[in-house]
Amino acid sequence: VTTISKDGKHNAAPMGVVRRDDSLLIRMFPGSKTLQNVRDTRVLVANVMPDPMAYVISAFGDLDESMFVLERGLIPPKLKDAWAWAYFTCAVGPSIKLTPVRAHVARTKPPAYSRGFAAVIEAVIVGTRLRFYKDDEGTRKILEYGTIVDKCGAPRDIEAFKKLKEILKID
Amino acid sequence: VTTISKDGKHNAAPMGVVRRDDSLLIRMFPGSKTLQNVRDTRVLVANVMPDPMAYVISAFGDLDESMFVLERGLIPPKLKDAWAWAYFTCAVGPSIKLTPVRAHVARTKPPAYSRGFAAVIEAVIVGTRLRFYKDDEGTRKILEYGTIVDKCGAPRDIEAFKKLKEILKID
Repeated sequence: VTTISKDGKHNAAPMGVVRRDDSLLIRMFPGSKTLQNVRDTRVLVANVMPDPMAYVISAFGDLDESMFVLERGLIPPKLKDAWAWAYFTCAVGPSIKLTPVRAHVARTKPPAYSRGFAAVIEAVIVGTRLRFYKDDEGTRKILEYGTIVDKCGAPRDIEAFKKLKEILKID
Repeated sequence: VTTISKDGKHNAAPMGVVRRDDSLLIRMFPGSKTLQNVRDTRVLVANVMPDPMAYVISAFGDLDESMFVLERGLIPPKLKDAWAWAYFTCAVGPSIKLTPVRAHVARTKPPAYSRGFAAVIEAVIVGTRLRFYKDDEGTRKILEYGTIVDKCGAPRDIEAFKKLKEILKID
């Protein structure tokens, strides 16, 4: 999800868009930069990103500014490498309710499941929640995902997982 | 993966196709019906299937015969609901080396990651390997995936996971 702050700073963070019947929502962590931006600007862009590295980096820090692209008529930036994006206005409540304004599909493919990609994403999610696990349970879970990445991952998955371990200081 | 036996019986089983540089291979369990069929016929069809139920059912039993479709000129059947398929000839060694003969893409979409779908597939994989886990560790892992399915899954993911628990007699 890409957003923009009151003072024009771009942000990206991995988020899940949930569909319940015909409504779309995102549950956001209290205190997140994304939530603050959405409170301030009431807009966001959901990007479909197949590059696992984008999730690793944006979950724990900032994507390089070169990754953001401004689209004519949209306030928040979208991601350069997104295969699809949708621009939403947001109603802020216990969750963020999304109303689609404009969307675009740039690339598609048959949805073949990749265990390596999935393992990177799930490890990133655990990594953002390490404080909720007791002892080293979170770290152990991440290393379990690592065995799947090693076995099934594409080179980019392996690279992204290595970056994740560096960021989290896991080895 | 769909295959056909020497005596013409159709089979489907969830398998991962691994790409290493420019070669494609599948690692198959010794003793699996798929491996026997490939030894006998030297051909298989890889199907891209977005329906999680197909994985649950074919991992532990037989897909309904109505799910298989014969394509003119192909020996093994393909799956009716496949979004894409590729027909391979097979060299049987420690792994199965695949040579593509013909392929077809029927449908595509932007590759948005679904945690619910991924959790069903990973739970199926654990389910097929329960005997390699000690005590109830495999079952516990499956139930952990179940919490992701409940939280993030589409109705079809929830239905498929319920079927998986029935098959494995887990609750």
